Amino acid sequence: MNKKIATVSLEDVQSASEKIKPWVHRTPVMTSQALNRTAGAELFLKCENFQKVGAFKFRGACNAVFRLSDAEAANGVVTHSSGNHAQALALAARLRGIPAHIVMPTSAPTVKRSAVAGYGAHIVDCEPTLKARETTSDQVRMATGATFIHPYDHPHVIAGQGTAALELLEEVPDIDTLIAPIGGGGLISGTSIAASGSQSKIQIWGAEPAGADDAARSKAAHRLIPQTNPQTIADGLLTSLGDLTWPFVRDHVSQVITVQEGEIVAAMKLVWERAKIIIEPSSATAVAVAMKTKLHKNAKVGVILSGGNVDLTKLPWQCGDCPAGLDQDCLAENESDREMKR
Amino acid sequence: MNKKIATVSLEDVQSASEKIKPWVHRTPVMTSQALNRTAGAELFLKCENFQKVGAFKFRGACNAVFRLSDAEAANGVVTHSSGNHAQALALAARLRGIPAHIVMPTSAPTVKRSAVAGYGAHIVDCEPTLKARETTSDQVRMATGATFIHPYDHPHVIAGQGTAALELLEEVPDIDTLIAPIGGGGLISGTSIAASGSQSKIQIWGAEPAGADDAARSKAAHRLIPQTNPQTIADGLLTSLGDLTWPFVRDHVSQVITVQEGEIVAAMKLVWERAKIIIEPSSATAVAVAMKTKLHKNAKVGVILSGGNVDLTKLPWQCGDCPAGLDQDCLAENESDREMKR
Repeated sequence: MNKKIATVSLEDVQSASEKIKPWVHRTPVMTSQALNRTAGAELFLKCENFQKVGAFKFRGACNAVFRLSDAEAANGVVTHSSGNHAQALALAARLRGIPAHIVMPTSAPTVKRSAVAGYGAHIVDCEPTLKARETTSDQVRMATGATFIHPYDHPHVIAGQGTAALELLEEVPDIDTLIAPIGGGGLISGTSIAASGSQSKIQIWGAEPAGADDAARSKAAHRLIPQTNPQTIADGLLTSLGDLTWPFVRDHVSQVITVQEGEIVAAMKLVWERAKIIIEPSSATAVAVAMKTKLHKNAKVGVILSGGNVDLTKLPWQCGDCPAGLDQDCLAENESDREMKR
Repeated sequence: MNKKIATVSLEDVQSASEKIKPWVHRTPVMTSQALNRTAGAELFLKCENFQKVGAFKFRGACNAVFRLSDAEAANGVVTHSSGNHAQALALAARLRGIPAHIVMPTSAPTVKRSAVAGYGAHIVDCEPTLKARETTSDQVRMATGATFIHPYDHPHVIAGQGTAALELLEEVPDIDTLIAPIGGGGLISGTSIAASGSQSKIQIWGAEPAGADDAARSKAAHRLIPQTNPQTIADGLLTSLGDLTWPFVRDHVSQVITVQEGEIVAAMKLVWERAKIIIEPSSATAVAVAMKTKLHKNAKVGVILSGGNVDLTKLPWQCGDCPAGLDQDCLAENESDREMKR
């Protein structure tokens, strides 16, 4: 059981699980006969959409914050993000009673700024460029002594993200295949580490939008190829793999499977309609892989539903808002097409 | 424990629970800190949106179908409905392996007809009037010998619907108040019977849209006043109380609380956003009552989420589709207004 993988070990994930237990939701594992029929296998959905702040990101942020020494913690934490990591770090810091400085581009939507502010974090504005974000974060760090918590390329964050798969495997130990979406790679890295403790041989599959397929291309090329100009509705998966996460994808992920935008939207709608739960496009990317791939009949397939934060005023399957020019008719065709192939 | 209430007793509900156990989902009871904060009390959501066919209706239909003698069952069942009861009866009949005849108006949406047909039921067309529905049902009954299963005014259906509250009270025995929506009254009747077995004194509250408030008016007048011309987005709550269900509302429901359309939509959106589950407007009507009413701090409030069948292509909070001319700004105002009052 003492399998040391790169910079984060199974023990780190197990230890993270104990550390964050008082703070995180132990999210349910859902099943749906309707989804099983479509996938042709038995799916076990780990519902991180029900996690605090609506995403698995809270696990990693929580582990990073609660692993700081008291002296470090006193100076607070800082990150740059306008996504789920921002809210996650803000809430984790509030729970520990320390300051959180969140660097956000001035272009970030008001609703995201309000959510972060609502958790009591200090928002620092910057220009909407990566350089400005990094420079501003550095300035905050220098001025306050706050610890920088990277959204994914951070060992404590990776270990925290792995706790979702750890819980899933406690409940369903005989999973054959475990699918998680890949953005920066924190979730898939933690997931691969958690699965390494399993008695059985679990295949780890990464799910990526075709329009943000740096992991698939990196894996094919055996070297890290950063993402440029990503185009996908799955806004949690726009980022590139990092130096820490890439080796996990390279060495411990069996394959990275890409899906088209229409497949993501169809999977998202299918889960909303049949499982009656709200998942965001990033989660749907993993579901789409389960639906698309020819799975072994009776295979037990774990799917990490990464989050459920969606703008409910504008849904991707509604005419005119559909990515890649898809509309309802188009989706309906895709769906019936898939039906026919099974 | 031997409290006989009108035509359906606590024993009937307990017996229904045993009878349908192999067929129904034991749905989860969810909690949400965000919803608790808004309500100012502790809410326990019984998730019948996760039930088979997406609604509690499957419980009652299942109990009615599986209580038929083999001789009765052989001739099948018949009902008139274009809603969740139609699908529920169709599935229950299929599970028992008997015919189901569903009388549906020619005006019923294709998606509903397809769903019923998908469960293998025989659809019988009729004109879209109550008289035509009843006449056609009678004709089918005479021709086939099928047993008519009323959507709510039927003792086995009422007993079946009560099993949701029975399960909720097994998990959370010290509930103070139990809220369920009122349409035809099957769910609230069964709920009141289930709660009568509790050690503690549980208040049963009925939730109704102001635009379909026959139960509220009937209770105020101490006599059954049928609904005429109902107007509400909560399409499961358009029907009138029946002869069997009215006495339960009269005698065992503490109060019937009405809510406006905007309150229903705001509650629905709140649950989608914060609990990340899909509920239909009928469920939201019960949530809206919990949000609107001044509850005792730390009160334990059970809410039966009756179902989750929603047309996902057209959501009520989207501009232009909002009932009563509400738009997003209006809803946002309602919400912030409620925030401020707490």
